[in-house]
Amino acid sequence: MASKTVADWIEDMSFEVELDGHVFAVDADDQFGGKNRGPRPKGLLLSSLAGCTGMDVVSLLRKMKMEWDSFRLEVEADLSDEHPKIYKDIRINFIFSGDKLDRGKIEKSIKLSLNKYCGVSAMLNRSAQVSYEIILNPG
Amino acid sequence: MASKTVADWIEDMSFEVELDGHVFAVDADDQFGGKNRGPRPKGLLLSSLAGCTGMDVVSLLRKMKMEWDSFRLEVEADLSDEHPKIYKDIRINFIFSGDKLDRGKIEKSIKLSLNKYCGVSAMLNRSAQVSYEIILNPG
Repeated sequence: MASKTVADWIEDMSFEVELDGHVFAVDADDQFGGKNRGPRPKGLLLSSLAGCTGMDVVSLLRKMKMEWDSFRLEVEADLSDEHPKIYKDIRINFIFSGDKLDRGKIEKSIKLSLNKYCGVSAMLNRSAQVSYEIILNPG
Repeated sequence: MASKTVADWIEDMSFEVELDGHVFAVDADDQFGGKNRGPRPKGLLLSSLAGCTGMDVVSLLRKMKMEWDSFRLEVEADLSDEHPKIYKDIRINFIFSGDKLDRGKIEKSIKLSLNKYCGVSAMLNRSAQVSYEIILNPG
């Protein structure tokens, strides 16, 4: 199976990106001439990871018959100082709310995703340490 | 410097993602219960690479005083068959149109980006072979 994306330069530092029939903009940081017409492209790596592992966890928890009300992932990473600037550590918060949550099932799903199924994690963890935390029913 | 993204599960396999104040959806492939409410998350790795190296090339070519009319990147990659499914080779077409194009400057900019400046390339090329082609004034 193949994936394809197209990016057309628009003006300044911004590009219009097409992926799977959906169109969005990306733009550089202010300090590099960006005008915030879209997100920074590098951060899309973290969004990609959030979506990939989030979908795995949804799919696995359904198979394990666990129900939830809300599910949010927060993914944060620091950039290295030297060029090329890469993410050296990536931290993920898996945040669930609901009254039928099962921490054991959630933990098992996350481990299966990050260590076995999620290709994005498998690619990014060759340069970054990926760690996670489970947060249930935050106040 | 840190980057942060948040993904909220909406329904089925779709998530709403926030990055740098911009909001977009991601969704799974049909065969995994997706409804095409947004692009597949893994493909965002390729969009990230397109934006990152595209911005480098724009910035470098401006310093080299080269002008162009249009600039498009096409990024394509095949997934491995086994889990976790990763990109094993990534091919980029850098497509320019204009009457003042300079292949030498374009080539130099691309090499500087892919080998030195672009952090996304530096992360992805630990699992994938990244190759490119330059296409000038396609018919």
